Amino acid sequence: MQETKDFDRKITSRVEDYSQWYLDVIEAAELAEHAPVRGCMTIKPNGYAIWERIQRILDEEFKNTGVKNAYFPLFIPESFLKKEAAHVKGFSPEVAVVTYAGGKKLEEPLVVRPTSETIIGEAFSRWIQSYRDLPMVLNQWANVVRWEMRPRLFLRTSEFLWQEGHTAHATEEDAEKRTLQMLEVYRKFAEEVMAIPVITGIKSESETFAGAIRTYTIEAMMQDSRALQAGTSHNLGQNFGKAFGVTFLDEKGERQYVWQTSWGVSTRLIGGLIMTHSDDKGLVVPPKLAFLKVVIVPIFREDTKEKAVVMKKVKEITERLTSFGREVFVDNRDQYTPGAKFHEWEKKGVPLRIEIGPKDIVKGQVVLVRRDTGEKTEVPMEEIKGSVETFLDRIQKNLYTRALEFQKAKSQRVDSYEEFQRALEVNLGFLYAHWCGDAACEKNIKEETQATIRCFPFAQAQESGKCVKCGGSSGKRALFARAY
Amino acid sequence: MQETKDFDRKITSRVEDYSQWYLDVIEAAELAEHAPVRGCMTIKPNGYAIWERIQRILDEEFKNTGVKNAYFPLFIPESFLKKEAAHVKGFSPEVAVVTYAGGKKLEEPLVVRPTSETIIGEAFSRWIQSYRDLPMVLNQWANVVRWEMRPRLFLRTSEFLWQEGHTAHATEEDAEKRTLQMLEVYRKFAEEVMAIPVITGIKSESETFAGAIRTYTIEAMMQDSRALQAGTSHNLGQNFGKAFGVTFLDEKGERQYVWQTSWGVSTRLIGGLIMTHSDDKGLVVPPKLAFLKVVIVPIFREDTKEKAVVMKKVKEITERLTSFGREVFVDNRDQYTPGAKFHEWEKKGVPLRIEIGPKDIVKGQVVLVRRDTGEKTEVPMEEIKGSVETFLDRIQKNLYTRALEFQKAKSQRVDSYEEFQRALEVNLGFLYAHWCGDAACEKNIKEETQATIRCFPFAQAQESGKCVKCGGSSGKRALFARAY
Repeated sequence: MQETKDFDRKITSRVEDYSQWYLDVIEAAELAEHAPVRGCMTIKPNGYAIWERIQRILDEEFKNTGVKNAYFPLFIPESFLKKEAAHVKGFSPEVAVVTYAGGKKLEEPLVVRPTSETIIGEAFSRWIQSYRDLPMVLNQWANVVRWEMRPRLFLRTSEFLWQEGHTAHATEEDAEKRTLQMLEVYRKFAEEVMAIPVITGIKSESETFAGAIRTYTIEAMMQDSRALQAGTSHNLGQNFGKAFGVTFLDEKGERQYVWQTSWGVSTRLIGGLIMTHSDDKGLVVPPKLAFLKVVIVPIFREDTKEKAVVMKKVKEITERLTSFGREVFVDNRDQYTPGAKFHEWEKKGVPLRIEIGPKDIVKGQVVLVRRDTGEKTEVPMEEIKGSVETFLDRIQKNLYTRALEFQKAKSQRVDSYEEFQRALEVNLGFLYAHWCGDAACEKNIKEETQATIRCFPFAQAQESGKCVKCGGSSGKRALFARAY
Repeated sequence: MQETKDFDRKITSRVEDYSQWYLDVIEAAELAEHAPVRGCMTIKPNGYAIWERIQRILDEEFKNTGVKNAYFPLFIPESFLKKEAAHVKGFSPEVAVVTYAGGKKLEEPLVVRPTSETIIGEAFSRWIQSYRDLPMVLNQWANVVRWEMRPRLFLRTSEFLWQEGHTAHATEEDAEKRTLQMLEVYRKFAEEVMAIPVITGIKSESETFAGAIRTYTIEAMMQDSRALQAGTSHNLGQNFGKAFGVTFLDEKGERQYVWQTSWGVSTRLIGGLIMTHSDDKGLVVPPKLAFLKVVIVPIFREDTKEKAVVMKKVKEITERLTSFGREVFVDNRDQYTPGAKFHEWEKKGVPLRIEIGPKDIVKGQVVLVRRDTGEKTEVPMEEIKGSVETFLDRIQKNLYTRALEFQKAKSQRVDSYEEFQRALEVNLGFLYAHWCGDAACEKNIKEETQATIRCFPFAQAQESGKCVKCGGSSGKRALFARAY
């Protein structure tokens, strides 16, 4: 029996080199790798299984709010992108362009979609005629391409997978309601499924989506105390409606432009997952998101009768856990020691391990080992199903609580620029500070400290104060952080 | 109340113009439309919902055979495509090429994947080292691009959605087994879920996938008696293994090339669905594939007390059908007459309609109307759940039986070239004929009759005969047909 796999190598610790730790966790858990095409990523089965869970759960939540899925083309005529001024400015430096197809040079180059507001705007202009066609509430699960100069697996890749919701409404109020409704779907999903606590709020103008009138965001804190924008929801106003002539006859028979929204989350969420929960042993996945929730490792001495006895008990365990389906896995590989198996499943983030050996059988018990704390608990064989459920639930809650406590410990209100700079020096992550609203101040702060305004959090007391940079007056605090 | 929607227009009958009928059904059921980019398609919510069902069910079947999903990049370096000689020859005339990205001309052009054997071959060459890594059984759900000169919605579009399975094995035998196993998954899915009877068999050399040693297929018959290739499974032999250096150390420590397979079905299946079951009233969807299985249409005179009474009963019906979730829909729109609603849901292919009005309430019944036959049946309110299940089951079976009978009636064994040509003239679809194995004969037959060899069916008696074209000797019959 081998002690460990040949390709096994130590995960760099977070303290030693955080960036390398991140890449090591991805490699050790076999989540993804850089593709031969610069900036692109291959998502390996373990990584894709997490994305599938994200898709499955979010898709159900979307449909519960009346969303219908559709699919729009990968290619967008270059002229479409140019129809909304802010949009083309924001995206044209990042696009990939098809110039040849079917052996011929194309008359009009085709942009590989960086996002689909424009092609969907054109469709809406034909599909929407009357107030009876509204609201139109669509979503697509798709790949998009934004050429990336500094690629980083999951966080910034030239191609990534995402969902993009696109809706059209009869009134500004309805559009704003949908924008906030989807932000709340994201918040709930991040916190309750991914166990990632987030701050919800509105972006400053400089960070607003190219073509939107307002962008809302959920911001999470990573273990290096940097912020990660984990999902955004945009109120597009009538910008795309006007650019693409999306109008409808209202109940009075008057022609009006529609009010639109768009909202999305991407494979970036997996980067956020890794950097919120994982540790120096490897990946940690919250049970609700884990495609493999429980791994069973039988323990016995080779060449003894123990094997048959233990494997019989393993069969009993799996029968008791049948309702988990493919979420329970028995690691009965002969070529590895139990120790090697423990190590492997820890790296891969399986929330709960069940160990069973001859001594456990004598005592009529199994040993449960939590991935989040390493804690071992002996539980009676008869109670195994209930115990597994209880422990998975505890792990889910603990991961959230731990992350929330970390976020709180790394957050601070700061009222002067010295305080602001000192806080960043001691690695405080989220700084709640007053800002005058002047884009120049925002830019100076960014240049001097690398901290940006992540959002104006919804949850804050009414309070006026002075801009930490220029002393100008401010009506609310912004959340500043260095961000991914 | 409106009698019909403004945009409603008559569906061309199949007899009148089959091609136009196909497009009319797609439009009437709101399945898809041509995109602004030539050859591409926008899949509308009703069409995408069918694709989602196909994905959900097939994906589960795949996983039951040990398949894991992954995601490989959209872009393939042009040099990769050139590594397997037959492959590049087959695909290079069809590819779309990115030459600019991020504002710069690329050093090496990137091909938008037409299929992923090459990029996956490169990954396998790094991922596979030892026999312990085999079999490797992966799949991806993705979009692919093959530039299309004669686009037709769902059947031939420049971009389409599909799944592509890619596996690597230690032995030729294992690869062949997997190739046939996946063909069987496709056959079962086509027949049992889509209610589309298919002929399984092996392709002739000229129709074998570019880079494969053997291609197996499922061939369906459309209502115009043409064949549709509905899914293929390829044994790639060691062709890609050798092109990309995919080797492993076997149990004896010797280095060997892997044996590979690939297999796929696409949104083309939706074209096959339409042309197998639909009629002059519009789309027909088998219950197992329908995202909406039952529509309930309440019937009452406006401005009477009937509405309240009927809607109360409708509520009772939906409660009895709760287990169907979103698959049951109550059409309580005020602005349409019941007749207009019947018409709309018929066009859209909902398998079963429930009508309930004051007279039914008096009799303690509802009326079930089958989409496939138009047959109306009165069933007692108390038995509604069981009746709905029974009828959905009957519709599923009837659609399959009806299609199978059609296929059989349109199939014939032919033993001379005159017989062959005459059969095509009277619109017989599947011709089982002997062929000598000479590619020249195959080509001549195609040029003279537009019929191609769809496959050598597995299910045929051992029988020798003479080539219908040249009289040369033949050991088995080929299935010839004009095909999409």
